[in-house]
Formats: sequence, C-alpha cells, structure tokens
Amino acid sequence: MAKYVYFFGGGKSEGKASMKELLGGKGANLAEMCNLGMPVPAGFTITTQACDLFYKNKQKWPKGLKEEVLKNLKKLEAVMSAKFGDPNTPLLVSVRSGAAASMPGMMDTVLNLGLSEAVVDSLARKARNDRFAWDAYRRFIQMFGDVVMNVPHDEFEHILEAKKRQIKTKFDTDLSTKDLKDIVKKYKAVYKKHTKENFPTDPWKQLEKSINAVFISWNNDRAITYRRLNDIKGLLGTAVNVQAMVFGNMGETSGTGVCFSRNPSTGENKFYGEYLMNAQGEDVVAGIRTPHPINTLTNQNRRAYTELVALKNRLEKHYREMQDMEFTIQEGKLYMLQTRAGKRTAAAALQIAVDMVKEGLISKEEALMRIDPAQLDQLLHPTFDPKAEKSAAQIARGLPASPGAATGKIVFNAHDAETWAEHGEKVILTRIETSPEDIAGMNAATGILTSRGGMTSHAAVVARGMGKCCIAGVEELNIDYKNKKMIIGKQTYKEGDYISINGSTGTVYAGQIKTVDAKLSGDFLTLMKWADQARRLGVRTNADIPKDAQTAVTFGAEGIGLCRTEHMFFEPDRITSVRKMILAEDTASREAALKELLPLQRKDFAGLFKAMGGRPVTIRLIDPPLHEFVPHDDASQKEMARVLNVPVAKVKAKVAELHEFNPMLGHRGCRLGITYPEIIRMQTRAIIEAAIQVKKARIKVSPEIMIPLVGEYGEISLCKQVIEETIQQVFKQKKTRVAYMIGTMIEVPRAAVIADEIAKEAEFFSFGTNDLTQMTCGFSRDDAGRFLKEYVEKGIFEKDPFQVLDQEGVGKMVEMGIQKGRSTRKKLKVGICGEHGGEPSSIEFCHRAGMDYVSCSPFRVPIARLAAAQAAIKEKQAQTKTRAAAKTRTAKVRKKK
Amino acid sequence: MAKYVYFFGGGKSEGKASMKELLGGKGANLAEMCNLGMPVPAGFTITTQACDLFYKNKQKWPKGLKEEVLKNLKKLEAVMSAKFGDPNTPLLVSVRSGAAASMPGMMDTVLNLGLSEAVVDSLARKARNDRFAWDAYRRFIQMFGDVVMNVPHDEFEHILEAKKRQIKTKFDTDLSTKDLKDIVKKYKAVYKKHTKENFPTDPWKQLEKSINAVFISWNNDRAITYRRLNDIKGLLGTAVNVQAMVFGNMGETSGTGVCFSRNPSTGENKFYGEYLMNAQGEDVVAGIRTPHPINTLTNQNRRAYTELVALKNRLEKHYREMQDMEFTIQEGKLYMLQTRAGKRTAAAALQIAVDMVKEGLISKEEALMRIDPAQLDQLLHPTFDPKAEKSAAQIARGLPASPGAATGKIVFNAHDAETWAEHGEKVILTRIETSPEDIAGMNAATGILTSRGGMTSHAAVVARGMGKCCIAGVEELNIDYKNKKMIIGKQTYKEGDYISINGSTGTVYAGQIKTVDAKLSGDFLTLMKWADQARRLGVRTNADIPKDAQTAVTFGAEGIGLCRTEHMFFEPDRITSVRKMILAEDTASREAALKELLPLQRKDFAGLFKAMGGRPVTIRLIDPPLHEFVPHDDASQKEMARVLNVPVAKVKAKVAELHEFNPMLGHRGCRLGITYPEIIRMQTRAIIEAAIQVKKARIKVSPEIMIPLVGEYGEISLCKQVIEETIQQVFKQKKTRVAYMIGTMIEVPRAAVIADEIAKEAEFFSFGTNDLTQMTCGFSRDDAGRFLKEYVEKGIFEKDPFQVLDQEGVGKMVEMGIQKGRSTRKKLKVGICGEHGGEPSSIEFCHRAGMDYVSCSPFRVPIARLAAAQAAIKEKQAQTKTRAAAKTRTAKVRKKK
Repeated sequence: MAKYVYFFGGGKSEGKASMKELLGGKGANLAEMCNLGMPVPAGFTITTQACDLFYKNKQKWPKGLKEEVLKNLKKLEAVMSAKFGDPNTPLLVSVRSGAAASMPGMMDTVLNLGLSEAVVDSLARKARNDRFAWDAYRRFIQMFGDVVMNVPHDEFEHILEAKKRQIKTKFDTDLSTKDLKDIVKKYKAVYKKHTKENFPTDPWKQLEKSINAVFISWNNDRAITYRRLNDIKGLLGTAVNVQAMVFGNMGETSGTGVCFSRNPSTGENKFYGEYLMNAQGEDVVAGIRTPHPINTLTNQNRRAYTELVALKNRLEKHYREMQDMEFTIQEGKLYMLQTRAGKRTAAAALQIAVDMVKEGLISKEEALMRIDPAQLDQLLHPTFDPKAEKSAAQIARGLPASPGAATGKIVFNAHDAETWAEHGEKVILTRIETSPEDIAGMNAATGILTSRGGMTSHAAVVARGMGKCCIAGVEELNIDYKNKKMIIGKQTYKEGDYISINGSTGTVYAGQIKTVDAKLSGDFLTLMKWADQARRLGVRTNADIPKDAQTAVTFGAEGIGLCRTEHMFFEPDRITSVRKMILAEDTASREAALKELLPLQRKDFAGLFKAMGGRPVTIRLIDPPLHEFVPHDDASQKEMARVLNVPVAKVKAKVAELHEFNPMLGHRGCRLGITYPEIIRMQTRAIIEAAIQVKKARIKVSPEIMIPLVGEYGEISLCKQVIEETIQQVFKQKKTRVAYMIGTMIEVPRAAVIADEIAKEAEFFSFGTNDLTQMTCGFSRDDAGRFLKEYVEKGIFEKDPFQVLDQEGVGKMVEMGIQKGRSTRKKLKVGICGEHGGEPSSIEFCHRAGMDYVSCSPFRVPIARLAAAQAAIKEKQAQTKTRAAAKTRTAKVRKKK
Repeated sequence: MAKYVYFFGGGKSEGKASMKELLGGKGANLAEMCNLGMPVPAGFTITTQACDLFYKNKQKWPKGLKEEVLKNLKKLEAVMSAKFGDPNTPLLVSVRSGAAASMPGMMDTVLNLGLSEAVVDSLARKARNDRFAWDAYRRFIQMFGDVVMNVPHDEFEHILEAKKRQIKTKFDTDLSTKDLKDIVKKYKAVYKKHTKENFPTDPWKQLEKSINAVFISWNNDRAITYRRLNDIKGLLGTAVNVQAMVFGNMGETSGTGVCFSRNPSTGENKFYGEYLMNAQGEDVVAGIRTPHPINTLTNQNRRAYTELVALKNRLEKHYREMQDMEFTIQEGKLYMLQTRAGKRTAAAALQIAVDMVKEGLISKEEALMRIDPAQLDQLLHPTFDPKAEKSAAQIARGLPASPGAATGKIVFNAHDAETWAEHGEKVILTRIETSPEDIAGMNAATGILTSRGGMTSHAAVVARGMGKCCIAGVEELNIDYKNKKMIIGKQTYKEGDYISINGSTGTVYAGQIKTVDAKLSGDFLTLMKWADQARRLGVRTNADIPKDAQTAVTFGAEGIGLCRTEHMFFEPDRITSVRKMILAEDTASREAALKELLPLQRKDFAGLFKAMGGRPVTIRLIDPPLHEFVPHDDASQKEMARVLNVPVAKVKAKVAELHEFNPMLGHRGCRLGITYPEIIRMQTRAIIEAAIQVKKARIKVSPEIMIPLVGEYGEISLCKQVIEETIQQVFKQKKTRVAYMIGTMIEVPRAAVIADEIAKEAEFFSFGTNDLTQMTCGFSRDDAGRFLKEYVEKGIFEKDPFQVLDQEGVGKMVEMGIQKGRSTRKKLKVGICGEHGGEPSSIEFCHRAGMDYVSCSPFRVPIARLAAAQAAIKEKQAQTKTRAAAKTRTAKVRKKK
C-alpha cells in the first residue's frame, strides 16, 4: 500500500527536497531543512497522491490515510511533548497547502488549529498573554469558518468592524480580551447560523475538515485559473502540511519575517528582507505596520540574527539557488517555516546567475536554465518607473503586442506622427489598425496603439520589428478619425492629449508617466556568450532595413532570416513606380516601371549586405497582393491619378479589379511572380547586382533568395528558372559571380505535404509559421482576435496559436515538411521566420524538430539565443538521463550473469 | 536488342491488338485485322519505343532501327510484288502516326510516298489514268513539303489557287494533267526555295524523313495540348505505320468510306456510315461532295458491300465493341485501312452498352466501364439543337460551371429575374457574381451567367445544386448594373436582349437557340441498376430543400450528405428574424429572435425528412459568417433599419463590426456556435422536433447533425455538449426519442492532422473538400479564378483543384484524416460533401480511400453512382490480376520443386 504521510521533525524527516512532486514544494523543503538539522517546527506532510485519490474517490480519503494521519499525529505529540486537545499541554497546528509548483495564495490555509474554549486558557497561561490567546482563537474561528465551512467572510468582518466602531478604534490591536471574547461569541453564532451546528471543539474533527478543505481548494476557480495562466500542468494535486504552530506574536521577544539570500530586485549578493516583532506573517504582508530591514534584527536579537544568516548561507549553498525564506521567532527562539527558490526581476536573475557561476556555485548551463527568456524583454526596452506607473490612471487594456513603455501625445494618422515628431514631439500613433502605408509614421512615433487586430496584426509585427512599444486590439477604444478624437467609455481624448502605454502588459494610461531607459549590463553579455556556446540552433533576424539589421547584429543575430522586400515599396520615392507597374497594361510598360525600381531596390539590398557583413541574408521576393499598394479611399485615388497623370476612373477600375474576397488566399506570393515574371526578374537583378557591388567593396556577401507561398512543384521550378536565368545574365554582364542560394517559404499546408517534391528545387526551407498557422487552423490573423481570445478563455486553445506555435496541429505540418524535405535533400537548410521564431517554447520545438535556425525581430534575438541554448541543454540532460538509465540496466544484467 | 519493327500482311502479322502500347492503336488493329485474315494492305509498324528512344537520343534513330526498316521494306516489296522506286513496279506507301491513345488529326501523315518523276508515269500506266497519277504526285509534294520539310502551307495553296483562277474553276477536279504538271514544277521550285535542295527522288530518303516527321509531330504544340486537354499521359510516343498505298480515286470502280458498326449518334444496332466513289479519304471528310449512306454501296458493288458487312460483324464480335472503320475500294476490291472503338454520344453509349449485354457480347461490368460518367450530364439536362448551336453567334466564353443549355432575356439582378419570370419570361440572370441573397432570382432564371468566380463560386455551386445551366467567370464581360447593360468587346447588350448559354461548354451566344429537353431512357435505368449492384460507395446528395431532395431521390440518392441550413435563412419570411438575431445586443434578445426562426426551421427539416423517407439526412449547423446575412449597400441597409425599426447608424455599425478581411478564415462555422451556443441550440431543437413530428406521422427519420469547421478537439466537445443537452431536453419534453448521430465536417487542415482526437467525439466525418482545398492549397475559391486558369494553362496544376480533387496534396490530408479518425473510432462513418463528390476521378479516390459515401448535387447523383461502380470494378480487376499473378508465381515455384 502507498505511504500517504511523511513525518518531519526531531532532526530528521521521512521526506527530502527531491520529493517535491509527492510532498509539494513546501513539504519537501521543510523535510529537507529538518534533515539539515535546522530549527523547523515538527509536523507531517500528506502527499499529493492522497489528494489525487481523494478526487478519484468522490472526495473521500483513500483507505489507510486516516490511520496514517493518526499515527503521525501521535508522533508529533511525542516530539512536541504536547497533546492535541489537551487543556494542559495543548498541541496547536497549522494546516497548509503546498503543490509541487508555487501557487502563492491560491489555495487554503488554517492556522491555530486545536484551539477550543477549554484550550485557550492554557495557551494564555503558557504565553502569559490572555489577549494573544483569545485573538488566536478568534482568528481560528474566522479562518476555519470561512475557509473550511464556507461561512461568508463578510459576516465575520462585520462583527469585527462593529466592535471596533463600538470602542472607537481602527486597529485590531486595540481590542481587549473582553472585546475578543465577545467577538468569539458572536462568531460562533454566525458559524452556527450557517452550518447548523456548533463550532467543533474536537480537534480531530477540526483537522479532518481542514485537510479536506485544502484538498478541495486545489480545484477552486482561482487555483484553476492560476494554473492555466502559469501553464502549470500534469500535477497530481496539492500536498497538505500539518505542522506544530509557533507564534511570532507572543510579545516583544517574538517576531516574524521574510528574507531573501540575495537582493531579488537587483541581484546583489547581500542578505535582504524585513521583519516585525510581535507579529504574525500576515502582519508583515498587510502593510499596516512598516517592517524593518533584516539587518536591524541584529539589534533586537543578535543570536537569532547570526543564526538566521548562517542558515540562509547554508540553504543557498545547499540548494545552489537564491532562497526566499520565512521565519518566526517565538520568545527569542528562531524557527524556519519555509524556504524556496526566490522570485526575482530579470536584472536580478541575470546578476545572480552570473555571480553564482563566478562563485563556483553553479555551472554555466545551470545559469542559462535559470533565466526565463521571455523576461529578457524587460532588459531591452524602456520601462515605466514602477512607482509612477502604480499611481497612474489606467484607462484601458489591450494586447501586449510589443514590449516596452512609451509616453506621448495622441496623433491619429501616420502623416501627423511624422510631422509632429519632426517638431520634436513624442507621439503615440493611435489607429483602428495600421497598414504598410503607415510605416514611416510608426517609425516616427514612440509608441503605437490600435483598437483592432491581434498579436500578429500588422501593427504588432512591425512594432516588434522596430523594437517599438505597441498595444493592439484595445476593443473599448472608439476612434473617430474625422474629428481626431477617441472615446474610451465616457471619456474623450483629443489629438495632442498625453497618454502612456505599457506594451509589456497591455495597459493604457491617461497622462504622462516617467520612463526608464534600457541598459545592457556586462552580465547580459556574459550570459549571451554562454548561450551561444550551448546552443545548436542558429539565430537570425527579420529585418528589412539596414538600421534594424544593425540593431539585430548588436543583439547577436547571425544573419537575416527574412527581409520583406515589399516594405521598401512604400517609401515615397518608389510607391509611384510601384503603382505605375500595377497600372501597366502590358509587359513592356510594366518593365519600364520596374526599371525605375531597380536602382532603388539595389541600393536597399546593398545597404543590408553591408550591414550584415558576410552573414547570410535571406531576401523574400514580393509577397503581398498588389491591392495593398493602391489607395482605397477617394482622395488618395485622386492623388494617385494626378501623380501618374491618368484618369481617376482608371485608378478606380484597377482597384476594383484587384479587390479580393480573401486576400490571404489570393493572388500573392509566387503567384504574382508566375503572372508577372518581370517582377521577380527585377528583384533578382537588384539582389545580385547589389551583392556584386558590395563584394567589389571587399565585403563578403551571402544572398539567399526566397520564393514565398509555394504550394506546388511547378511553382518553384518555374520561379527558380526565371531567377537562375536572371542571375546568370547578371554574372555574364558583370563578368563576376557571387555565391547564392535559392529556397522557399513553407507556409501553405500543401507545401508541407509535398515537401519532398519542393526540396528537389529548394536549397532551403523557411517555415512561415504565421501563414502556416492561418491556413492550417483556418484562422485569419486579422480577424481571429474576435474569437481566439474567447477560445483561450474557454480553454479550447491553451495559447493563442499566433503567439505560441501550435505544436499539435501546425507543428505536425512543420515536422512533416522537414522530414519530407530532407528525404529528398539530405542537407536541406531549414529555418523559421514566422513570429514564433522569437517565442521560447516554439524555439524549443524548432530545436527538437531539427531546424538549423530561427529568425525573429531584432529585439527578440537575445531571447532566441537563450531559448535555443536552453533547448540544447534540455536535450543534453534528457540524453544523459537515458544513458544513465541504460548503464544501470547493463550493470544489472552483468550482475545477474 | 529490342525489336523496333513489326510486319503485317500476307495473312499474318508479328503484332496483335493487345500490343497497342507498343504499336499504337492503328498499328495494333491493322495487325489484328491481318491476323483475322481480313484484306489489309501490307505494311509494318515502327514501335512507340523507337519514338521514345528517338527523343532520348537527340532525335536520332536508335541503333538497329534502320536495318529493321530496310529488312521490312524488302518483305513488303516481296508481299506486294513491287519495288520501292522502281519505275516499272513502283511500291507506294503511306506513312501514318498512331499512338496508343486516339489523337485524331493531331500528328502527321504522308501519303503516296515513293513517287518521283520516274515513277509517276508507271503509276499512270497501271491506273490507266494520267491525271490521277499527276494529282497523286502533286499531293505528295505538297504533303511532304508541308509536313516533313515545313515549307509554308500557304505557298502551295497560292500556286494551286492561281492555277484554278487561271483556268477559271473552283474545283481541283477540273485541273488537267497539263495543269497538274505545271503545278508540280512550281511546287518543286517553292520546295527548293525553302529547303535549299531539290525535291528528293530517292524514295528511301523520302521515307526516312517522313518517319522522322511523324516522330517529331508527337511533340508538336497541338499534340501536346490535345494530350493535356484529354488527360493522355504515360505514353512512350507515337508508332509509325508504313503501309502499301491503295487508291480509292482510281476511277469509278474505286471508292472510300468511313463506317460504324452501330449508329454512333443514337446507338441503334444498325450499320452506319458513308462513302464516295472515286475519292480519297480526305474528300469524304472535306464535305465538298456529299457522301452516300453506306447501305447504298450495295448498288455500286454488291460483293464489296456484302464483304464489308461481314467484316464489320466479325470485327464487332471480335473486339466486343462498336467499331469505327475506314475502308477503300481499289478497282472493285475492298481493303480495310483502320478499325477502332467508335466515339459516340452519351445516349448511344448507353444504348450500345445495354444492348451488348443483352446480346451476350459483354458483361454488365464491361458495360459499366464503357460509359464515361461525365458524359451522363448530356442526358440529364436540356441541350441546344446541335445544328442551331453550330450556326449561332458565339460572343464569349467562360467556365462551364453547370451543364445544360438555356435561352432567355438578360436581366441584371435577382429581383428583376423573379418579376420577369412571374410574367412568364425566360430570363438569364447576369451578374458580376452572385451571393446568397440572389437565390430566389437564380431559381426563377433559366440560366445564370457571371463575369467573375470559378467552378466552385457561389453561382456555380448553387446552379449545379438546382440543376440549372450556368456559365461563370466570363472575363470579357463588362457588366454595368446602373445602366442595365453589359459590354462584350465593342458590342453592348441591354436588359431584355436575348442570349443563349451552353453550361456544358461555357459558350455564350447572342440571340435565341432552340433547346431540346432531357429524357431518361429505360437503358439509363437499367445501367444505373447495374451500377448500384457493382458499387460499394454510397451516394448521397447535397440538398437544402424538399424539391431538390426529391429530384435527387429520383436520381437514386440514398440520403442527404449535406443540407446547408443557412440557405433557408435568406427566405423573405425569415431573413428579418435572422437580422434581428444579428443585431441583438444580449443573449436574451438573441434568443427571442431565434425563437421566431425555430418553427420555420422545424418545418424545413420536417419537409426534408419526409422527402427522404428514412434515408439519412445530414444537417450542417450554421456555417457562414454573420456578415453574409446583412446588406452591404446603403439602400438595403436603410430598408433593414426600417423593417427592424432601429436607427440606420446601428445597422451600419453592426455591418462595420462584422466586416472581416478574410471571411473564409473568420468567425464562422462552429466558431459561431461557440460564441452563440443559442444558435445551435435552436437548430438542434428544430432538427429533433421535426424528426419527432415526422416519426409520429409513421415516416422513418434518420437525422445526422453535422458541426462545421471543427479544427480542435475542444470545439467539437463543446458544441456536442450543447447539442446533446438540447436533444435530451427535447426528448424529455416530447416524451419520445429518435435515433440520431452527431459528427463533423473535416475541412480545416488541422482537423485532418488531429482527426484521432476529433473522432473521440464525432460519430461521422464528412470531408468538406471545397474548404479543405482552399486552406490546404491557400486558394480562395472566390479569387483564385484569376490565377488558377493560368496555372492550369502553364501546367503547374493539371486540373483546377476545385473541380478535380488534388490527390497529391488535399488527398493526402483526406487520407490522413480517415486513417487517424478510424484509429480512434474503428466504425467511423466517412463521406465527402465537397463539390468533388460528383466528379468521377475524385469519386474513385474516395472509393480507394475507404469512404462510406460521396454526396453531390442532385443532377450529379447518376454520375456518382456510375463512377462509384467503376471504382469498385477497377479495384476488383486489379485484385484479380494480383491473384492471377500470385497463382502463376505459385505454379512456377511448384514446377521448380
């Protein structure tokens, strides 16, 4: 039969730190501290397995649990020299939850259990403090009533408040023993009213019900939500810790505190924490009295402080990790109540990890595993001053589309953004949604705010590429372009009003908030260096212009994985030529317009090649449908007609002709290249001529030409032929050659299905997981915001598949594509250039799937480097485990022989 | 070494009919006739393999071919007692192409080869006809010059025309020997001008070049196009037949004709054909002289006629197939020049197949295999009177979107179509594209014509469902709704003008053309009965209303595979309720609007259940995005606001809110049901209440509720829960139960990928291959017309994947879905309800993939029944073959033992 209860206390435990899954974090660490001979109040832990069986058994205890609890209770009584319910030597216990993963405050706790009228006097006597004892009893009734029996919390609060009003005070501490006794009476009446029974005096009953309550709290709504939000899965349930009570509120020689072995905010290796004398844990947290810095404890109780410092040093060394500890001093004696790995800011995490390696405490690999890649964002972008943000007026929430913080004046169009910025104003570009025409305005703004669109909307993608703060899809935002104002609820904000946006949280504030600039520390560079040593996956960047490419190189990018050539088409000096090309009625006039674009694109590419200095640069040929390049409103169409000197009707007719019902699935990508080979001819020429030009300046070049939206062999073979012909032509004309590659995006599901065919022509695959997700799941990323949010809330999808790669669905297509592709071309180079290339769990998937590189926006490059390193380390660890297991098996076999 | 040449003649052949792949159809059948002892001019056939090697060998003959040709030429000379190039006993031959598949007129032929100045006199002497001989020589030079040496055809024609003008005649036959000699001289001069050499007198050189020309003609443009259009693939090349010439133009005792063993137009078992005396084959075809009916030949040459009848009887019995034969009578003696299976109309094919079974000539299975399922369409729809159509003015071409023929007056909107039809007018509804709002107008029209959209556009799909003639995507059509006119080229057609459309060919005509109604024969019913016995695959129909369901049952449908409930939403009595529901701002008012719809939907479903009498009826819950139900033009929005008594601004705001960038990938299908479970609750209630109501009238019911657009397990489990709850509620309220099933469409690629998960909930899968094709290939079917046509033309896709299931891509997803689905639920019922369910090659795929049924529009049901039968027969034949091969192997092994 399984063992359900593990004892700790009296210098040794049945459990240990490694039994976290079974005993929960709290229980395992209490056992470990006890084993280390540390002063831990004795107690026992009921396993998570018991909780699991409790649920499987219609909320009844598994067979044998009761006997084990009783046996351990006896043991506890023996160790504590006290007896449960004995008026002379009463044993009081706490009953606390504790799962394998930290879920602070989500589940239930009952303190002071074992109290009754009979026992309270004995406690008073022992503590030489009537008031303390009756307050403990009051608290117990309230906690037990509320947590275990579901008596409405409010009713207890009302009684307490009424009493305080009666004696005209605001503080619980002003209540006398008599007041408390009166409250206890009233509490019991409320308890009876709701439960139809008297408050239990039998401590066993109290304990049994409390254990049940903790079990049940595992599945309360907030616990379920917390697990979902924090991606906590696969746990059996919560453990229950029953532990002898110690009191920090027994008078001025008692106290309680929380401390960290290092500074959790800066990472500095200095003892950090706070405490209060004559207080219980909740008093420190509640913030009514101001706690003291931990180092002043030495003045209160030098011995206890010295002991605490020694303990924290031992614990940190033992766990090889920064510890977050709780302690209580009862009448001068120190007790440890909890220790666990401490939460920390990104900056602290970085410094602690690097310091610990320098101190020889952990290995580089361990250091790498300890940083949450997503946290690095905090270090790369400006942030709000935390205090200023806390006091600012929050007016709306949207999607945290691109991290960072920004303050500025509202403008409602890209042109205004540019003009105002030229005059030195900081502006927040506020749009219903953005389009490629807004790029210059987005670049000029300090932040971007949209009322529509999801995490991979145009605004979000471009903003992330620029490393610019953005909030998307703020649904309560009503924008009125005509009158240059926006309404949130009943409040109107006009052009020029200040707002502030936090792109890391999605919160919009009224007014200005002070921002703090990002600063990269030496620790950051050290850690990144280690990451590069550990990872197998290459990290490239998605960048269209030299400035972004340079930023990415600074962040460690090893190449460009995606340059979207069409972004360049919107620059004012070329959009006219692009439109001329679109209006062209025959190949000749189309080619004439393209000729105007050639030198401009060549210059663009030359700039990128120079910025990347020999690193591979993957350039995607034109991808969007042509209607994205023509204006859709009347005024702009008239302007276009004027500039091109054609009748407005012609412009309108062309716009109508280009209209598509589902542009996502329309005439775009290589389909354009097949209809108008002259476009890819021009682009190829621009790429290769630029490469030759840069090579002549003695800078290495490594162009990779990428054909988008291929779904059938004939598409890539036709396009490749046009590209190859053009390249050979240029080589001949320029009398020189450069090395190059030709490959394709894999973004249409069909491409994954026939990847073996496609790989006959493609020298590399780059998975465009944005579009692949759209088509595999049938989600238009511009429209899906409407229901995907609901889907995630209802748990249909765990995560928005545009943010986190859908490994079960889209991932299967990716794996199929790689496997089939490499079946034809063994050395096929494979990467990803969708937004997922910068998301840690997706990067791990890419590593496992055997990709060669990921590509992401410049500001995500460090995140990708770290995530790639972690993926490699995880794999190594798993292999080591497998090898070790195999060794053990072999050894066993040998022994048998 | 391979044998490249096969001789026939003198009563026996080296080849035979079964060697079609190697000898081509013509060569194999000549050999066969010769083996049967029939009068065939001797000759030999150069194999298709030689042609293949010719191409593989840079257009050079394979080693040994020359020797074989020379050897066989000798043999031919011996059999014919004549000598190649010998002025005394000259051997003249024809050189004809002949591939394994019939490609009439696509490749080259040279007649009268062996003629030269030296030989022509001898021929004249033998024929006792100078003019004949010199005409033969003239023809030879012209044919050889044109076909073999690429001398421009026109130049020969000019010389001939000039001569006729000179002697003031219009007929070749008026040319004298002298005229012909003059022409020959001029021909030779033209020949020399272009080829820079004299016309060859060496017959070997003539032969060698002619054989090459035939080889080369295998890959001329028109042959390539013909093979692509007729789906002829996998052939090695063409064979070349070199055969002794016989002349039907040697005088009045000579003649030539073409005949069929049965009537190819009606199928009647009566000798059919025509002939001309003193003529060559081309004269019969050219139509300058009117040929005589074959039975009058008995008056000309009784012996020859009797012999011909005997031969055609033997041939038909031998080949067990209706024969199309060519013969020549030279100076009274009958020669057979060709026999092959005869092409025939659908009606003839049907009658011949059924008759031959009755005659004991072929089995039922063979009869079934002989009908092209696609041809059946001819029998089910009205057609134009062929003569009237031939002489009509063709004004445009589009996609043959729904078969049949229609004549009527042009109207430009659905409302006019209804009004005019009410006044007894036949109208052709002409639109840029149609939308669900046009359904009533489409129903009122006799035909539908659109300028946009492909084979699976709304217009096409709905028209096929209605069995109504439709041409879609007529690109040259410029429709001006405002002025109620359309322009094609420079011609304007106004409302009320007559046009005629042939939906089977896609041709648009000006004016009226007489139509002939469809009539189903008893043979049709017989054949269908046989098909039902042979097939394994079930055949259902896609039908939304009882009328269509009844039509389908008449055609043999065994159930409804897809009822699109939303089509019912557009009826005038309910669109208001639908719009009320859409405008509803909370669940309560949404439910109120749905309550209005409930009795109407219930009535719809009851009607369908009655029409189908116990056959399964698969009803798909609401699928399209809500914006399809609201008007998008100003006037209609105002009208909607008036009817619903709400401000226009509210309507406009809702329409704007519902707008989607890619509605195909938007908020539709089960996604609606998840946001508004009350909609599926209402629909489920309507379905089940209707089923109970019909059951109470003692009619069996078998409802299958289908959830559309599922892509993730959570979607189907949530929807199914709502459906199940509703069903149980209805059962309880009505105090009775009916059997039902709940299943899903598989149309999102992700659904195929996780089909094992989905099958945990789904009792059936119905592959929605329209949407599955859109998403797998990334083709919006509303937009793809623009480039898919080009793709098919450029050979990137062989067929439009919306018409013919893309087996390599989409098919792989279907197979994956079935395999994974059945891995979880062994007895999972699987069908297809996309447009492909009525397309023969796709049906064969469905059979092979192990589906249980296909579902198609009512008028395609017979096609599907036949195609399903053919799929089953093919499979059986393949199995028989495999078994036979296995037996042979076993026997061989035994022998060895």
